Formats: sequence, structure tokens, C-alpha cells
Amino acid sequence: MAPPFVISGDVAASSVKSAPATGRVASVYSEVQSSRIDHALPLPSVLQNPFQIVEGPPSSAAGNPDEIAKLFPNVFGQPSAMLVPNKVDTLSSDQKLRIGVVLSGGQAPGGHNVISGIYDYLQDRAKGSVLYGFRGGPAGIMKCKYVELNADYIYPYRNQGGFDMIASGRDKIETPEQFKQAEETAKKLDLDGLVVIGGDDSNTNACLLAENFRGKNLKTRVIGCPKTIDGDLKCKEVPTSFGFDTACKIYAEMIGNVMVDARSTGKYYHYIFILFATTQLRTDHVLIAMGYEEFAFSILAQMCSSILYTLLIVKVMLVHNLCFAAVVRLMGRAASHITLECALQTHPNITIIGEEVAAKKLTLKNVTDYIVNVICKRSDLGYNYGVILIPEGLIDFIPEVQQLIAELNEVLAHDVVDEGGQWKKKLTNQSLLLFEFLPPAIQEQLMLERDPHGNVQVAKIETEKMLIQMVETELEKRKQEGSYKGHFKGQSHFFGYEGRCGLPTNFDSTYCYALGYGAGALLHSGKTGLISSVGNLGAPVAEWTVGGTALTSLMDVERRHGKFKPVIKKAMVELEGAPFKKFASLRDEWALKNRYISPGPIQFMGPGSDAISHTLLLELGAHA
Amino acid sequence: MAPPFVISGDVAASSVKSAPATGRVASVYSEVQSSRIDHALPLPSVLQNPFQIVEGPPSSAAGNPDEIAKLFPNVFGQPSAMLVPNKVDTLSSDQKLRIGVVLSGGQAPGGHNVISGIYDYLQDRAKGSVLYGFRGGPAGIMKCKYVELNADYIYPYRNQGGFDMIASGRDKIETPEQFKQAEETAKKLDLDGLVVIGGDDSNTNACLLAENFRGKNLKTRVIGCPKTIDGDLKCKEVPTSFGFDTACKIYAEMIGNVMVDARSTGKYYHYIFILFATTQLRTDHVLIAMGYEEFAFSILAQMCSSILYTLLIVKVMLVHNLCFAAVVRLMGRAASHITLECALQTHPNITIIGEEVAAKKLTLKNVTDYIVNVICKRSDLGYNYGVILIPEGLIDFIPEVQQLIAELNEVLAHDVVDEGGQWKKKLTNQSLLLFEFLPPAIQEQLMLERDPHGNVQVAKIETEKMLIQMVETELEKRKQEGSYKGHFKGQSHFFGYEGRCGLPTNFDSTYCYALGYGAGALLHSGKTGLISSVGNLGAPVAEWTVGGTALTSLMDVERRHGKFKPVIKKAMVELEGAPFKKFASLRDEWALKNRYISPGPIQFMGPGSDAISHTLLLELGAHA
Repeated sequence: MAPPFVISGDVAASSVKSAPATGRVASVYSEVQSSRIDHALPLPSVLQNPFQIVEGPPSSAAGNPDEIAKLFPNVFGQPSAMLVPNKVDTLSSDQKLRIGVVLSGGQAPGGHNVISGIYDYLQDRAKGSVLYGFRGGPAGIMKCKYVELNADYIYPYRNQGGFDMIASGRDKIETPEQFKQAEETAKKLDLDGLVVIGGDDSNTNACLLAENFRGKNLKTRVIGCPKTIDGDLKCKEVPTSFGFDTACKIYAEMIGNVMVDARSTGKYYHYIFILFATTQLRTDHVLIAMGYEEFAFSILAQMCSSILYTLLIVKVMLVHNLCFAAVVRLMGRAASHITLECALQTHPNITIIGEEVAAKKLTLKNVTDYIVNVICKRSDLGYNYGVILIPEGLIDFIPEVQQLIAELNEVLAHDVVDEGGQWKKKLTNQSLLLFEFLPPAIQEQLMLERDPHGNVQVAKIETEKMLIQMVETELEKRKQEGSYKGHFKGQSHFFGYEGRCGLPTNFDSTYCYALGYGAGALLHSGKTGLISSVGNLGAPVAEWTVGGTALTSLMDVERRHGKFKPVIKKAMVELEGAPFKKFASLRDEWALKNRYISPGPIQFMGPGSDAISHTLLLELGAHA
Repeated sequence: MAPPFVISGDVAASSVKSAPATGRVASVYSEVQSSRIDHALPLPSVLQNPFQIVEGPPSSAAGNPDEIAKLFPNVFGQPSAMLVPNKVDTLSSDQKLRIGVVLSGGQAPGGHNVISGIYDYLQDRAKGSVLYGFRGGPAGIMKCKYVELNADYIYPYRNQGGFDMIASGRDKIETPEQFKQAEETAKKLDLDGLVVIGGDDSNTNACLLAENFRGKNLKTRVIGCPKTIDGDLKCKEVPTSFGFDTACKIYAEMIGNVMVDARSTGKYYHYIFILFATTQLRTDHVLIAMGYEEFAFSILAQMCSSILYTLLIVKVMLVHNLCFAAVVRLMGRAASHITLECALQTHPNITIIGEEVAAKKLTLKNVTDYIVNVICKRSDLGYNYGVILIPEGLIDFIPEVQQLIAELNEVLAHDVVDEGGQWKKKLTNQSLLLFEFLPPAIQEQLMLERDPHGNVQVAKIETEKMLIQMVETELEKRKQEGSYKGHFKGQSHFFGYEGRCGLPTNFDSTYCYALGYGAGALLHSGKTGLISSVGNLGAPVAEWTVGGTALTSLMDVERRHGKFKPVIKKAMVELEGAPFKKFASLRDEWALKNRYISPGPIQFMGPGSDAISHTLLLELGAHA
């Protein structure tokens, strides 16, 4: 039989060793992509005219200033820098700068515009400067892998999503050897400055680089830029991180669509049950992929000591098959900003905010009961459907779980985990009880290999499975008691990848461009160890403020592997903050009445196209 | 401890028996939703002016016309009706019509606009008419559950997604008792006409209703409207079904985002493996939800006779963990229109079109080899990532699988399936070999309960798991042979719900409005048993044609439960059609070079906002 499909083309080149450039070809862009390339970006007026830099008072740290001062002797305490209009430019436009830029960590919509902003600054204010893009993240700095960026190279990436202009990476510059490599690159390229576009860890790394370069008397200065869709890298002077706006709007579009779907579904409409497994590769998934689950089940039905529990769950899940609840789990590691923002945009029936769970010291049972109470009350009202938002990493907010994880971290650091379970005797009673209460897969996940900081990897814990399981069990209990008469069919969604590489919104496009342009100005004026800060974001773009904030002022120390390390404190959802308060004042109404909002697809023109996130608006004091 | 969250509001009303109205409140709409309500919809010029109806020659059937004629003695052979401009209106504007409308089956963006179109027709051309919306699908007709639609009721749903204005349902009017109920409703409401908005099955049902009403000398006439995101209800006079345009654009947006994500990911970037399980509730998923997979695996490792195969797969999946391929599985039951359209919009590396697999009589191994060949060649070129599109229901296109299913259908209809496997002796050698080759879960799925037509439920078969499994195995083989040196990390996505309830595109909004307005005209002129047909869609809206096509002309007969039943033939992807030919001419380039296109979010204004689907454009003879 002839080959079914023939792949033509010259593919003999198996000698190619490294990944080739993936340069974009604007000629194959979609109409919307094309229209975005030439979308004109407004600049804050301070960047359109001559400016000077004004400094504030010396800064401190977010916590443990003495420790931070010790760790950063050369850059600690720097004042904030603010660009203010001036009659004449205070910076020489004759100075030719040699600047590097690197994308670090996960992608966020707008990264390309930061680079465009730096480039345009150099073109506008320091003609003849050179901009190098380090390829593949911080590893590109260490290995001196770079590309010289010019107008043609940058053009097709303007206002486009992704990080593919120079790609990103998750490597860190940590060891003395690695710092040495970075120094060598800085010297080799004769760099005046480096812009690190990244999240909290990457900006911490940027500050360590700034400290190191200054300590070694290198002329290379380092400026950070706040990137993360999670929205947890922010402070007074950095009102938001880029990418958050776009990602939330993409998730909110999909949540809104699912809501309309749920509402459109009559009570007797049958949905297919879809269960999304969201952990990384493990043997359990291999087993599933192998198709042995049915078989496995019948074996387990005879062998498991927990068989009664198993059968109960099976029964529950077979009984509850007539209505619909979407359990939507959102990216966001520790902070629940995305979940909160999406809730404010869409009004789901149930939203769990991790920070509240932590602050109120809720147990898994409390959270389960809350969900079940709403389901039962909605069922009484005739609504046998709903939408539930849960942040990824929820489990990490539950104090009893945190306590268990802390104890497990200790055990794993110092003891051998024996098959017989003798190690469990090291746990306190409360933690042992909880551990035994958890389903085996969750137990397994808690024991899995740790992240590079030695901590439990929350992203691997299948929160939504655990919650669905607990909710189903509780509902069955109430059904038997006669206090719940509804039926529902659960369906989980995991929204993640779709949001991190979307076309940036007008807000993210403009914000990133200003961040990059401002970073250029900071480097031009000789600043180092600052994070590019663009503020007054509720006002028209012309009135946005531009400056830099000492990275050390965002830092605290954290114990990792038994040592103190500097970290930029993650900005968590504040329960006393306006966004949470607004949500808290409305959630009861959202729970029982249907107040669903469908934000629709991101618009680049016309109504809604210049909207900024509810969280940001509320934090800025407006009423979103 | 105090309840963690308090749900306030008056929820004592457990006496509420049926699902309440979920009426929308436009005041809580998003900015984009609000802006869409008042979006002005252009009408084809023939609908803006006086018209008359011109008829064509008598029609036949898509197959077995004699059988169809016997099944539809009263409506078979009707000519197509075409609205053409006239000096004066030929229909009396004094006639007050009593019309019902029903949404049937799964949701598709634009349904609300069909209803708006009918309503506006009646307001414009038959003032004083009444429009009833049957609630919850055809069951609403049988139970006479309806709401009288007026301007205020309809207003918030204009240009909005979902089917929640009157909700939908999947019930069918099939038995003599059910037809009797429908007659009673028609008489009780004194209906002049009924518009059935649905897919192929629902329009078949509409025709049976038309036949039945005419046979009983009822005045109630029935007109269908072509609804399905699958795009498989179309013919020469009905160029597309509504919802297809919007759904494809939503999926294409997400595919485009995932593509940018894949391309942005450097070779050494580690992704979390996410495996989405997409079948409905079954014990295997309960097992997974229970968290016993790890345990199950260790038991199975000692007990399974196929253990070597199991271990091989485990090894393969652990080895291939360094790069990324997105396996995107799209809704679409039997026809691959959505997959083809999304491929034309986004240019993935690999696209499987079910109809081609069927036509070329490919085996599962052929498909696997094709995918693996592309992966290996891309790896040689340094691209260790990719995007693969696979239509849901792929397995149903594979002839050897079809043969197996046919044999299984026979066995299940006539034999007892014994545990010992004696029943397998009824299978042919080829089918038995294939059956034994399949993973147990797939075997199980093939034996599961059938759909209401007695057929294997393709949607329950986890095609992507089976394919991933086979691809991984083949790659491992090649790795051991030395012909493949790459690494990849697979990640599956399932796009479904997000697309069916999105805000309709400009195209779907306008198209649906014309379909509904036209349906009003057909009922006004006394037509029955026709499907509303709007054509010339490549031209400006003013030039669109409007008319109706005999539903019997779309029909053939099919053997269901051993009896002949009329069915509207699903329109499959035609391998000689322009859309497939264009795809086939480009796929080799897409496979090895990166030609990814990111369509971006649906726009309602500005560039791209009036685009129509590539498939439709190509079928109309344009060069998309």
C-alpha cells in the first residue's frame, strides 16, 4: 500500500543540530494580526517631551531590611526615580548605548511590546545605539547567545502575543560560575545595560545581577520589567504586571461562554461528563492512557481496603448525572488575582479565593460545605446548574494543609520515607489525620519531588478532582438525608495555555510599550537595580507616570533549603482591598440569582476595547 | 466555628418545582454584549422591498426518492421557493399569523437572531401577529410549554450567544402519541406555522411534522432552519449552517494562541504534561477521580497479561518529556468541517481529516505513521514542537474500525455478550485482530450502550488517547532504531463548550437574522416542509438570495434498528471540494515549515470583523 500522505520538501537535513530561528513572516498573518502590527501606540506625554529624572527618599525593603541590605550592599536603599517634564533633555542624545534584553520565565501577552519600547526609545533618544536580544531566557546571557535587534526584525512582533521574537527560558543565574558567565557576556558585548523582563523570581535575579555588576565595577546596569499573567508582582508604584489584563480577558471570554452554555441548558438536557486531568506525566496517567482503568477498577473493587468509600463515590457519581456544574480551575499558583478578576468580570455562582480560605483558616470541609450549600440552595430555586471558579493551588491556602506540607517538608528533608509508613509517626496528630483523609493520589502528589526551591509543587496537585470528589460525597449524604433533591453533572475545564499567548489587549500593548520605553530612559540615565514603573493607569495614557522603583524595596527574605534568600514578595489578594470587598459584597447575589456576564472576545476597536481590568480600576479607586 | 461564608437571600423557597425563567437582564451586560444588542443588522434587499415567491421544478431526494416519496406522500417533491423583487407585495399585510418557534438540539451561536428575524418579519409584514416560543425544545411543543415573545422579551437577546431565550432540548417527536400531542398544541394555539431551528435530525423531524400536519389537514405549516456548529447540514441552496462561523473562529483563536505558545517555547523549556480525559462518566473516571491510579498501576504491573506493553508505554512516556506537541481534538461527530476550517485559518503542522482517512481506507497504523513521520522530520529540522488537529470521531472514519463496529452492532443486536468471550467468535478474523489490538478501554467503549439510533457512540471514544498512545509507541521504536532523536511532551486540549455559546460573529448575526426573516416570509406565503435558504453569501448582504428548499430533497433513508428511516444526509468534507484541495496543497509546507497563523479574538468592528469562513469562501469559488 502506498504511503497515505506524502510529506514533500527538503527534509534530509538531519545534520541540523539546534532549534532554528522561528522568525515570523508577517505575510501569513491573519487580518487581525496584520491590523495590530501598525496599531499606533500612544506614549505618556512625559516620554514624548524633554524630561529629567527626580529622585525620592531612600527606600527600604518589604521585610527584613537589614538582611536585604546585607545581601545587596551596592544597590540597597536606592530612591525611586520619576521622569518629570523638563525644558530640555538632561540626557545626551549623542550617547550610543549598548543594551541587552532578555525574556525570562513563562509567557505573558505584551512581552514583544516591551522590547519594541526599548528599541524605539533608543532610536528616538540615543540614535546609533545597539539592542541585543538574548535568546532563550537567562541561559542566553550565560551562553552569550543573542541576536541584534533591528527595525525589520522587530516589526512583525509589534503588538503580537507570545515570546517567540527571542524566546524565553526558566534558567536562573545563581552560582558564582553563572554570574561569571554573565559578566563575561556583559564585557564581551560591552553592555551599558540589560533589561530583564520577568516575574518575581526573574526580577529578584535581575537585582542580584545589578548588585553583582556594580560590585565588580562593571558599567552594565540592570532594569527589571514586571511580567506575569498571575498579577502577583505589583506594589504601590507598579500597579499591575503586564499580561494579566489580556489573560484574564481571554479566560473571562471562555467563562462567559460556558455560563451562557450552562444557562441555555434546560434541566433535562444531558451533557457529556468530561473530566480533565491536569497534572503532569505520572504513571497514573500512563495507566489511563493505556486504557486499563476499567480493569483496574474491577481489581481494585476486590482488593482496596477503602473499597466502601470507592463504591460510595461510584454510586454518587452515577446518581448525579442529570444536571450541570462547570468547575473552572484557573492558573495562578499562589495568588488568586486571576480568579478574582474573572469573577468580577463574569459573576459566577461560586468563587473560591485562596487568600480568604487562608485568612479564615478554613478546612477542606468548610470549602466543600460552602460549595454544597450553594448547590443545594440553587437546586431548591430550580437552578440545577452553575459555574464555580477555583484558583489553581487552592490546597496551598488551606492552613491544615499548609501545616501538613510544612511537616512533610521537614520529614522529607531529614528522614527516609519507608514503605512501611514508619515516617508518618513524625507527623502531628492533626496532620496525620488529614493525610490519611486525603485520597491516595493527593497523598502521592504531596510526596512527589519538590520544585527547585525544595517546596511542594502545588501545580501538580489536582485540586479540582479532590473538590469534586468531596462535593459529590457531601451531596450524596444530603440526598440520603432528604435535604437535597437535585441532580448535576460536573464538568471541569482547565484554562491555562490559551491565555498566556493571546494578542495583547490595547491596555497591555500600550502599558508594555511604556514599560519598555521607560526602561530605556532609566538605563540611559544610568540607573540600575530598579524595576520600570508606569503609574496613574486609570487616567488617559498621556497622563501616565513613568519611573523606576528600587527592586530591593519589593524584597523580603525567605528560608529556602535552610538558607535565607532574597525574594520579591508576591502580592496576594488583599481581603481589605477594594476588588475583594466588591466581590464579597456581591457574591451572595451571584450565588443564587443568575447575574452571569459574558465579556465576549477581546475587542481592539470600538466598545470595550480600552477597558482595563476591574481589579486595577478598583485598586485605583474607581468603581468598576 | 462560624460558617465560613454566609449565603443570604430568600432561599427558603424549596417549593419551587420547575426551573424558573432565566431571563437576561441587559443592565448587567458587559460592554461588548451591550454594544451588540443595538448592532444594526442589514437585510438582503429582497427582504427590504416588495417581493413575490417564484417556484422551481419539482424536487427529488438525496437518495432513494421512491422510499422518501412513500414516507412523505403529502410534502414530497415540492419545488424550491425563491423570493424575488416585485412591484407590490403579493402577501396580505392584514393577515395576522400565529407562529411558533422552537430551538432543537445543541446550541449554536446565532439562534436568538433567527427568532429576532421571525419576530421582526411579523412586525414588519404581518402586524398583529403572535409569536410563541416553545420552551425547552420539542418537548415544549408536546407539553404545550411556551412563552409569548414580544419586543421587550426579545430585545436583550439580539446578537447574543446561547439558546437561553427559550432554551433548547434534544427530545424528538417520534411516536404516534407524540405527534398527537404536537397536533393538540397546534390546535390549541391555533398555529398557522412553526419554525424548527435545528440540525439534520431536527429538520428531519420538522419535515415529519409538516407531513403529519398536512396529512391531518391542519393549517399549521412547518419551516426548518439550518443550525449546527458542525457545518454538516448544507447543500447547494443552503451554503452553510449557522454557528459554524462563530464556533470555528473561537476554536481558531485558541488554536492560534496555543501555536504561539508552542513556538515561543524554547527547546529546553519544560512544560507540565496535561492529559485531558474527554469521555462521559464511567467507572474508569470514577477510579481516577478517586485517586487510586497509582495503586491500580502497581497492582496491574503484577497482574496484567499485557504487562510488557504497559511497561513499554510507561518507559516511552517517561523518556519523551522534553518537548511539546499540542494534540487538539475538535467537536464534529462525523464530519471534519470544523477541523478543516480551523486548519485553513491557523495552519497546524498535522491535520487529520476523517473523510480522507475513510476514502483512502487508512488503518490506525497509517494515521499513526503519518503523525510520527512529521514529528521525526520536524525533529531533524530542529523543531521539537508542533500542533496537531484531530476531529472528534476520527475512529469512526477508519474502515477497519467501521467494519468492526458493524459486526459489533450485529452481535450486540442478536447475541449475548458472555464474559468468557465466546461472542468474539462471531467476528471476522480481521475485526477480531483489530479488536484485540485495541486498548481495553477502547474495547469497553465500543461495547457501551448505544445512542438512541442504536449506533456506537463515537463521542465516547477517546480518540486522542488512543492516538497519543500509538504515536508514543512508534516513536520509541524509532528511537531505538536510531531514526528519531527528539523529545516531546504531549499535551491534549479539548475545545468544545467554549465555542457553542460565544457571541455570534457579524456573519452569523446577519445570516441568522436573514434565515429567520425569510422563514417568516415562507410561512406567510403558506409554505411548508421547506428549510429556510439564504444564498449568494460571498456577495454583499444586500445581494443575498432568500428562499426555501424542500426538506425531502435533502433526504435519504437509513437503516436504524433494522428499519428504514428518513434522514437528512450529513454533508461530509468533499475531497474534491475546494476547501480540502487547498488544504491538501499546503499541508506539506505547514508540516515542516512554521506557517502558524493566529486569527486572534473575533472582532465586531474593524479589520477582520466581516470575514466569512474559509470553507464557505472556497466553496463559493473565491480564493481564501
